[in-house]
Amino acid sequence: MNDLFRMSAVQADSTAPCALHDQNRTQDPSESRSRLSDTHRRWLLLVNSRGFGPVKLALAAEMIQKGLVLPGNAFQSCGQATALSPAECARVRRCMTGSEVADTLTAETIEVVSSWLDSAADHSLMTLLDHDYPPLLKQLKNPPPVLYLKGERDLLAFPQIAIVGSRRASRQGLHVAKAFAKELSAHGFIVTSGLALGIDTAAHQGSADTRTIAVLGCGTDVFYPPANKPLQMAIAHNGLLVSEFLPGTQPAPHHFPKRNRIIAGLCLGTLVVEAGVRSGSLHTALAALDLGREVMAIPGSIYSTESRGCHSLIKQGAALVETARDIVQRLAGAFETYRVLHGLEHQPDWVETASAGSNSLTHEGMDQQVLNALSAPKDLDELVADTGLDVSELMQTLLSLELDDVVIQDGGRYQRTEFQLK
Amino acid sequence: MNDLFRMSAVQADSTAPCALHDQNRTQDPSESRSRLSDTHRRWLLLVNSRGFGPVKLALAAEMIQKGLVLPGNAFQSCGQATALSPAECARVRRCMTGSEVADTLTAETIEVVSSWLDSAADHSLMTLLDHDYPPLLKQLKNPPPVLYLKGERDLLAFPQIAIVGSRRASRQGLHVAKAFAKELSAHGFIVTSGLALGIDTAAHQGSADTRTIAVLGCGTDVFYPPANKPLQMAIAHNGLLVSEFLPGTQPAPHHFPKRNRIIAGLCLGTLVVEAGVRSGSLHTALAALDLGREVMAIPGSIYSTESRGCHSLIKQGAALVETARDIVQRLAGAFETYRVLHGLEHQPDWVETASAGSNSLTHEGMDQQVLNALSAPKDLDELVADTGLDVSELMQTLLSLELDDVVIQDGGRYQRTEFQLK
Repeated sequence: MNDLFRMSAVQADSTAPCALHDQNRTQDPSESRSRLSDTHRRWLLLVNSRGFGPVKLALAAEMIQKGLVLPGNAFQSCGQATALSPAECARVRRCMTGSEVADTLTAETIEVVSSWLDSAADHSLMTLLDHDYPPLLKQLKNPPPVLYLKGERDLLAFPQIAIVGSRRASRQGLHVAKAFAKELSAHGFIVTSGLALGIDTAAHQGSADTRTIAVLGCGTDVFYPPANKPLQMAIAHNGLLVSEFLPGTQPAPHHFPKRNRIIAGLCLGTLVVEAGVRSGSLHTALAALDLGREVMAIPGSIYSTESRGCHSLIKQGAALVETARDIVQRLAGAFETYRVLHGLEHQPDWVETASAGSNSLTHEGMDQQVLNALSAPKDLDELVADTGLDVSELMQTLLSLELDDVVIQDGGRYQRTEFQLK
Repeated sequence: MNDLFRMSAVQADSTAPCALHDQNRTQDPSESRSRLSDTHRRWLLLVNSRGFGPVKLALAAEMIQKGLVLPGNAFQSCGQATALSPAECARVRRCMTGSEVADTLTAETIEVVSSWLDSAADHSLMTLLDHDYPPLLKQLKNPPPVLYLKGERDLLAFPQIAIVGSRRASRQGLHVAKAFAKELSAHGFIVTSGLALGIDTAAHQGSADTRTIAVLGCGTDVFYPPANKPLQMAIAHNGLLVSEFLPGTQPAPHHFPKRNRIIAGLCLGTLVVEAGVRSGSLHTALAALDLGREVMAIPGSIYSTESRGCHSLIKQGAALVETARDIVQRLAGAFETYRVLHGLEHQPDWVETASAGSNSLTHEGMDQQVLNALSAPKDLDELVADTGLDVSELMQTLLSLELDDVVIQDGGRYQRTEFQLK
């Protein structure tokens, strides 16, 4: 058993390479032909235990990673460390130490996973116990205890932005989703979405080389929606498919809110391009708000039903965005969280570009800057060029200077009243 | 002289009927044939004095209304009461006591005003000294010292909303301006705008019976823009034309920012329907922001240049509005200021309607309300009907209940997990 406890400690150190699997394999030759590690096998046993939902499993994972599954005074330590009942602590210990026996159904489930895992080199399992489980995702109240992955697992370590929206999107909405995805992936973001028809599809298609993450409401081996089979295959090849549902699971309506919370959890921010007032993408946005992530929405006509959801989000405090640059600027702050959670030392270029763009002068500073620029009468174009302020900052400054009788506008040209009076 | 000082005192009492004019008329029979009162005549003399701009005139008006134009120790009192220099205080006293002699130019100006005033019964003069000068307008840093009015002067006492926007408006923009003006005037608001082509014109046209206020960048007797002559005449007849420019003054580019600040100053809130990034209507909005008034904007496509200005305002904190009801709700709070400034005791019906609409439950309250409604599985429609919550409140509540594993959605129907597990 001691090996397992040492591993628990190792997993807590997020810089360790995925030591878990290897050590298990050396430890237990009888299973060397299966890629399903002992720890994962035992975790699946716990996950399938009656009465263990995502919330309790998150507590159990914490407990295991803290090495609290010790035989001796485990009961007591558990009681102190988690909100699990003594009975539940004992259950966790039995499962993770291999002393719990799987019932037939659970045993079959585990075999399904094991053979799925062995059926393709690009299949992998990610659990709450793994050191590369995305820290942002772990911030969910109910993080998925197991994720089934097909494709490039490492994409989960990149900063992600969710681009989601309505299935019944307008042509313009599809264009916006595609164009923003293209620009944001060029900025180094991975675009994450739900592979639904409409906005989601356009967002995946817009991502450079379909290097994008699709979170599914069915097993990764089930093609849904059928029309997106080619796209789903392309993403599996160049990007990553993510699902918390067992291989072979068919889509079901109640899967999608769960899928949406994963999209929100993975991403620094969520952009809603178009959404009716009941669009599922509002679930994603509200889950993101709930996590304190950036939520952004594209405005549209007040007569377009597909913009209602976006407008309602903006009224609730979501940021109105018009350009990909708006988004990069808003996420520059959020990236700091990401950097810390991932223990990165440097910031990528886009953060600095964005921060630079978002610098703004104090009001007094702008007054002086504009007055200096007005050594001679100038129009708005010239002032924009000379001060580097954006038009709205500039107009607000000019207005307050006019109200103070310091500047006067005449025929679209601004001048300092002191000069004008001379 | 004493009469004048008593009058100054009287003017300070804003409940007094326009005592000023009457008393002057009885006092000075030689001018009984002109409607231009002594006080107004003297005020115009001060207004035309070299070195007295709007800011100093506002101080002078305050001083006069406080009765600080006493002959004796006036100098001292002035010094204490205002930021005017002793010399300026003396000038104010000389003008308002009739001991200052007008130069030829000023005398001519005053005659122009006097004959304009006498030329039509619906012409009137409003100065900072008058008890019915709009209190909201007085909150400007540089309130207009004199307003030339043509039409129903009393409209200035009604709660006003500014509807402004681009001259080059889209067909949809024009429709929105007209529809919102119609609905808001039905709610008891007076719609105030600038009589410009495009959005302004549509806003005036939408106002019921053209009972609307147009603030001009030229004299009230000058028709500008020419295409709006019929509209301008209709407003003079059913509504009110307002200008701070002398009768006969032609429009000039630098008049419009001044005109815009008056629109912002008169209104509880300003709605921008469509505006390019350089639209003059942004001046109005920014002046309103500067006064702490409600600024609202209509969203549009991110590809429409005429929505750029609105989006930039929303990014700066202006409220995104989709319906006239949104506006009425936002202004319900602002009306309290208006009520106090105007010494009204009651609130009009629309305020109560609006406040009622804007009531919102606490998060816990909503959770409980939704759980109660879920005595049986229900879809979103049924829940909206049963809880009376709006869709976005409802979805946020349902989402947090789902995340807490209390509620589950299945095929678009929501149910309490406790029931589902039984």
